[in-house]
Amino acid sequence: MSSPTTLPRRIHVTEVGLRDGLQNEPVVLTTEQKLSLARALMAAGVREFEVTSFVSPRAVPALADAADVVAALRAETTGLHLSALVPNVRGAERALQAGVDSVVLFVSASESHNAKNVNRRVVESLEGVEQITRLLEGTGVALRGAIATSFGCPFEGNVPVESVTEIARHFADLGATHLSLGDTTGMATPPLVTERVTRLRQAAPDLPLTLHFHNTRGIGLANVMQGLALGVDRYESSIGGLGGCPFAPGASGNIATEDLAYLLEEMGLDTGLDLEGLIGAAGVAGDLMGRPLLGQVSKAGARLALSACDTVPTARGGA
Amino acid sequence: MSSPTTLPRRIHVTEVGLRDGLQNEPVVLTTEQKLSLARALMAAGVREFEVTSFVSPRAVPALADAADVVAALRAETTGLHLSALVPNVRGAERALQAGVDSVVLFVSASESHNAKNVNRRVVESLEGVEQITRLLEGTGVALRGAIATSFGCPFEGNVPVESVTEIARHFADLGATHLSLGDTTGMATPPLVTERVTRLRQAAPDLPLTLHFHNTRGIGLANVMQGLALGVDRYESSIGGLGGCPFAPGASGNIATEDLAYLLEEMGLDTGLDLEGLIGAAGVAGDLMGRPLLGQVSKAGARLALSACDTVPTARGGA
Repeated sequence: MSSPTTLPRRIHVTEVGLRDGLQNEPVVLTTEQKLSLARALMAAGVREFEVTSFVSPRAVPALADAADVVAALRAETTGLHLSALVPNVRGAERALQAGVDSVVLFVSASESHNAKNVNRRVVESLEGVEQITRLLEGTGVALRGAIATSFGCPFEGNVPVESVTEIARHFADLGATHLSLGDTTGMATPPLVTERVTRLRQAAPDLPLTLHFHNTRGIGLANVMQGLALGVDRYESSIGGLGGCPFAPGASGNIATEDLAYLLEEMGLDTGLDLEGLIGAAGVAGDLMGRPLLGQVSKAGARLALSACDTVPTARGGA
Repeated sequence: MSSPTTLPRRIHVTEVGLRDGLQNEPVVLTTEQKLSLARALMAAGVREFEVTSFVSPRAVPALADAADVVAALRAETTGLHLSALVPNVRGAERALQAGVDSVVLFVSASESHNAKNVNRRVVESLEGVEQITRLLEGTGVALRGAIATSFGCPFEGNVPVESVTEIARHFADLGATHLSLGDTTGMATPPLVTERVTRLRQAAPDLPLTLHFHNTRGIGLANVMQGLALGVDRYESSIGGLGGCPFAPGASGNIATEDLAYLLEEMGLDTGLDLEGLIGAAGVAGDLMGRPLLGQVSKAGARLALSACDTVPTARGGA
């Protein structure tokens, strides 16, 4: 598996449902609906949100209210860390004006995905990152780097680890405070997690890593297990697994926050999250989407949510 | 996580969809339909089946054709290992007559579940196991022990590890060749896997362990990761995740064979299984059930099943 490591005791979970989730859902929520979901998540202890994307409202109408969402959360709660995706200078200006704590700048590790995603070559995206970084100077707003297709590209297949480490070094040079490895279409595997985490720690030793897994092929939490074994203490997930995979109809997107929190809690790790509260928030998300979501623990209940003997059939003879 | 272990290289996966899966599905298949699913699985390299249960046809009409299924598979294929669940002496006699390779005898580690399942106290079930064992003498048919609710009971909650080790010792004394730990309602967690595997190896060092996880709370494959880290090389799973959880409507049952095989293959472990074949078999299972099943890799395709750039929307600006 990996060299033995002491498990991190405190795990940071960033909720990305309002951004990565909603961006890939067919249903468009009103600002008030988004806030109702955010409130349910805050009631469950969520404090770190990737809350929206300052992307062109024409490209992603679901997130056209980015500034309103940030302003409303700022007005009603303190102690949150609100980050937002920013694809270009215009988006960065809007994000700064809205009052986010950090901006997430992303580059794909594969040319085809970057072209498909933002119509640019990777080197052009990196130049864009540099431009935006200059805007941040003196604002106190942190730069978080994100690398899409870090574990594989749906168009190109395997992605060389060097493509990932090179982008990571750019982010480190530009003063990023965090780096998130995006498993955009669920191509991460435990050996790839080990390889990429190990190499990134060599390439950018001062940049804390966040792992952002999708459950597209069912092994999202197996990859979290590998990340934990390597000592990685930051993960991103989406309540109810909100957000499908645009490349595979019916397939899962993000790992579900409540399932992740259940795993971490059962492993004795501190997340600051409340499972029952997250199950409630997953219910809110499912109601808003009008469909059953893909998280599991929300359907079965917490581990010790006991059944009454008289609610199940007798003498099935199963095992 | 656990003390470092060399990963086992060869993993044995027993397919339980035809038994544990079908026993918990509302749709009743004909014998010919079951055989079509078995054939799809054999085409994918499956050789070890828990193929049916010789339970009372009145209690479980879906498995009333137990003898026919065994006879048909025996007639058309060699090189299979066919095991069958057997709840009592009558079932054992039928199983022996049908020509199984091994019988699976099960006892719950919790009194409430055992009572609910077979209307007996645990000690009575153990006496039944002894009776059946005598029937097997000289037949060449192997005894496999299975312990239901090994990681928790839906009625009682936590199950003391001693309840599990005590039953294991009984099975060992009776000459069992294998012991399967059933995670009946998905209450296993990585720390419990470590505790139970470690203690069972002390209590019954000569009894090879099989882990039978359910994905009820989404962490089935995380538990497999823990099992692998401990060097456990035998797992049970069900194609498409067939078989729900009778205690939690809508919740998953068994881990899906194709997702398990995908994880193991990506970890470089040898299973003898062919992923594309398993995805095909999951399709057969879904067609037979008339509903989408819960496995994931069957929806997204294998890791390097690439998308064409022109099938997805452009410039979403996501990451």
